[in-house]
Amino acid sequence: MPKLVLIRHGQSEWNEKNLFTGWVDVKLSAVGEKEAARAGELLKEKNVKPDVLYTSKLTRAIQTANIALANADRAWIPVHRSWRLNERHYGALQGKDKAETLEKYGEEKFTTWRRSFDIPPPEIEASSPYSQKNDERYKDVDPNVLPQTESLKLVIDRMLPFWEDVIAKDLLAGKVVLVTAHGNSLRGLVKHLENISDADIAKLNIPTGIPLVFELDENLKPTKPFYYLDPEAAAAGAAAVAAQGKKK
Amino acid sequence: MPKLVLIRHGQSEWNEKNLFTGWVDVKLSAVGEKEAARAGELLKEKNVKPDVLYTSKLTRAIQTANIALANADRAWIPVHRSWRLNERHYGALQGKDKAETLEKYGEEKFTTWRRSFDIPPPEIEASSPYSQKNDERYKDVDPNVLPQTESLKLVIDRMLPFWEDVIAKDLLAGKVVLVTAHGNSLRGLVKHLENISDADIAKLNIPTGIPLVFELDENLKPTKPFYYLDPEAAAAGAAAVAAQGKKK
Repeated sequence: MPKLVLIRHGQSEWNEKNLFTGWVDVKLSAVGEKEAARAGELLKEKNVKPDVLYTSKLTRAIQTANIALANADRAWIPVHRSWRLNERHYGALQGKDKAETLEKYGEEKFTTWRRSFDIPPPEIEASSPYSQKNDERYKDVDPNVLPQTESLKLVIDRMLPFWEDVIAKDLLAGKVVLVTAHGNSLRGLVKHLENISDADIAKLNIPTGIPLVFELDENLKPTKPFYYLDPEAAAAGAAAVAAQGKKK
Repeated sequence: MPKLVLIRHGQSEWNEKNLFTGWVDVKLSAVGEKEAARAGELLKEKNVKPDVLYTSKLTRAIQTANIALANADRAWIPVHRSWRLNERHYGALQGKDKAETLEKYGEEKFTTWRRSFDIPPPEIEASSPYSQKNDERYKDVDPNVLPQTESLKLVIDRMLPFWEDVIAKDLLAGKVVLVTAHGNSLRGLVKHLENISDADIAKLNIPTGIPLVFELDENLKPTKPFYYLDPEAAAAGAAAVAAQGKKK
């Protein structure tokens, strides 16, 4: 039966600095590298053997996959990358300090941009050093399609076609598919698979670095609730992510 | 114009132990990881920007690419892997200690297997723990095509179709192509591009971890001699490889 394994990348250089990241391409911190290594050990311990890898176009998700798969002795599987798995584009907030942003715009706007389902922050200006307007990695993508800001809804809208057209094919062929990506692109995918409502998705916190497994039927519907390869660490991790969302 | 960049992986866990490796899938040592990091720094310093990556199916070449590209801020480029870029299959010698092999078979056979162009070692037995007979990573390959031993000639015979049918297409499209692979698969490629004779190829020693660049014309012929991104380190590295071939 098809099996889908999701890994959310761990701490990046900017998580440490408390900056809005979005599509800005920062690397994993040393802590994030350790989280990726642990994810790989879990795959190996639990005998979960991905046949194919999908990543976003962002280095922190790619590094997570590279480190995890080397640790799981599966560095050799085929890999495909797509901007459609990228983190949510954070618009004008990209590169901004979170505490300063809260102070500047006030609690209401700040919380709305972070947690509402369909209200995106203002668009990023093309002149911003944190714009991806001229980023070579997207040069093959129609510029009209590339976001300048996104809500979670917009993330799901651009992620689902890749799920339906590309990832689904490998699952329907019976493969174990690994997706390494980001908090919001993975929340979007889980929302879709579990039929979570627009209101309830705000409460879903995916912990970093712990493989999350969906077992699917021939219609790509879950045959049972998804589970983590280290449930105890996942519960602690999700609580930490939830607390982070509340602080400041 | 098309540009081809080759990187030979650096020290593996088995280089350290003086064992014949071939298709046995060992990881980079800490030294090998540093060599890969340096290769990435050289790409960045010299402004060489690969558009696409080709690797073998062996972890040590894949790790080299992953580390180098992360350091060069190009982890996001598309990647393709093929067994046709693998190291030479060392047949029955795989997993054997080099000094013990020399003692057992004598200097003449030992040197012939290591340095002749077209005399392969004996085939590996399917029951050997170092056989790849049931290795999952080759399950999509016709088992009649997978080698049980190889001379350098046989390496070239199986590598060239991948060069001609796949890698060449990206070069003809004007891309900068990075290939991370192994001493013998890369020697085979250089032999082909530079028209080196069967006798002279034994003298070509490619140093590890230093990007080697070919600038090619529209017929994929070199427009000038290939060069290394760090010529001084390359000269020292090639001398070290040559000395290694002589010792014992």
